[in-house]
Amino acid sequence: MANKFTEEHEIKFYECDVLGRLTLPMLLNVVIKTSESQSDALDRGTDYVTQLGLGWVITQHEIKINRLPLVSEKVKVTTQATSYNKYFCYRDFWIHDANGNECLTVSSTFVLMDLETRKMTSVPEELIAPYECEKIKKIKRGTPIEAPGDDRLVRPYRVRFSDIDSNRHVNNARYLDWMVDGLGYDFLINHEPTAVNIKFDKEVAYGDEINCETTLINNDELNSNHLVTLDGNSCSACNIHWK
Amino acid sequence: MANKFTEEHEIKFYECDVLGRLTLPMLLNVVIKTSESQSDALDRGTDYVTQLGLGWVITQHEIKINRLPLVSEKVKVTTQATSYNKYFCYRDFWIHDANGNECLTVSSTFVLMDLETRKMTSVPEELIAPYECEKIKKIKRGTPIEAPGDDRLVRPYRVRFSDIDSNRHVNNARYLDWMVDGLGYDFLINHEPTAVNIKFDKEVAYGDEINCETTLINNDELNSNHLVTLDGNSCSACNIHWK
Repeated sequence: MANKFTEEHEIKFYECDVLGRLTLPMLLNVVIKTSESQSDALDRGTDYVTQLGLGWVITQHEIKINRLPLVSEKVKVTTQATSYNKYFCYRDFWIHDANGNECLTVSSTFVLMDLETRKMTSVPEELIAPYECEKIKKIKRGTPIEAPGDDRLVRPYRVRFSDIDSNRHVNNARYLDWMVDGLGYDFLINHEPTAVNIKFDKEVAYGDEINCETTLINNDELNSNHLVTLDGNSCSACNIHWK
Repeated sequence: MANKFTEEHEIKFYECDVLGRLTLPMLLNVVIKTSESQSDALDRGTDYVTQLGLGWVITQHEIKINRLPLVSEKVKVTTQATSYNKYFCYRDFWIHDANGNECLTVSSTFVLMDLETRKMTSVPEELIAPYECEKIKKIKRGTPIEAPGDDRLVRPYRVRFSDIDSNRHVNNARYLDWMVDGLGYDFLINHEPTAVNIKFDKEVAYGDEINCETTLINNDELNSNHLVTLDGNSCSACNIHWK
């Protein structure tokens, strides 16, 4: 059984939306922080990975939400590297509230990038060993993502300095800021996401002018489809299910 | 002597810029979080203030920075309500590192707004008493702020859902995101702020299209002047000194 790692986190007001609910971008930041803490604890932190000439890149998150944690709540964030194959590492996250109820889960796929060639590389044994996760042959196919329809809203965004993280590219979480923004204030204060499936295809840098496309589909269920493009190429695609 | 209140905070990667330094907007969020914790501990939290029909509004922050805390540092954030008069409450903040060195200080001015009339109201005794701060006659004049010059860069920003906080207006800290963005990537990775003086004049709401004006003045010293306007009216003005 792979190592599990848990840390406490208090939900800050600046991690919440107008209704005091943890935002989707901050949800991703909070869980990723915990995987960084686990890596540090196992002596496989950023320094170790950089020294190998590598960097972690996230390719997909699938989030299932029972309820979004609220401002001031003290939650427990748990993570576990579940399995890996030659190129892909799979990691799960859980957030539980103070009563032990599961607020949400995240299943994520990571790959390693060679910092010089910017190409995907195979997973070195010495990097992955301390997580004690299972080596598998299978490549898991993430749930496919539907593109926005013809009736899509298109909004331009220019990447700001504050959108960039220490990898010099847009922080993955920031895509969700742009994506949900397209749904508008009234929709967002009257609905809550129950599932999010987001894929990252291409990095975006400071000053880039991206387009964010949004469609809302309201039949039996309420879903929104999102796509961030740069010069016509997909950078990130996402489907969100709402209640 | 007024009550001092201290809490620990670990600087998260999503509170930092591309070089791993705490960002100015997050610096404000982190200190404000501590004043909220003090208010909660004194039973003068948001619920108490709202029940009086009031809300806190910040009118000015003056920040002096020895050095910006870095990602993963565990800092101590201290706050103290220093004094108040009929309309204004004055509060100081300090951030110290693990060795007890002072990283920065913030001196802030708060007023109370009537939530119905949106007008400033006098400070109720029962609200301020637990902080045990001195009542003064004097109205402190904050350091005046210089406007951007004729050679200013003007950039438009549309307020996003993620810019809005639980007061339904733009989070004060967000203005600094827009302001520093005007200085550009190369300037920002090669300089560090040593002093920030920011004033808030007018609230901004979801969907508003604001302009952010920026001038950089490079004579003996390096200063930048910033102004956020909505329909030609000032919303926030700021001077930053850089090294």
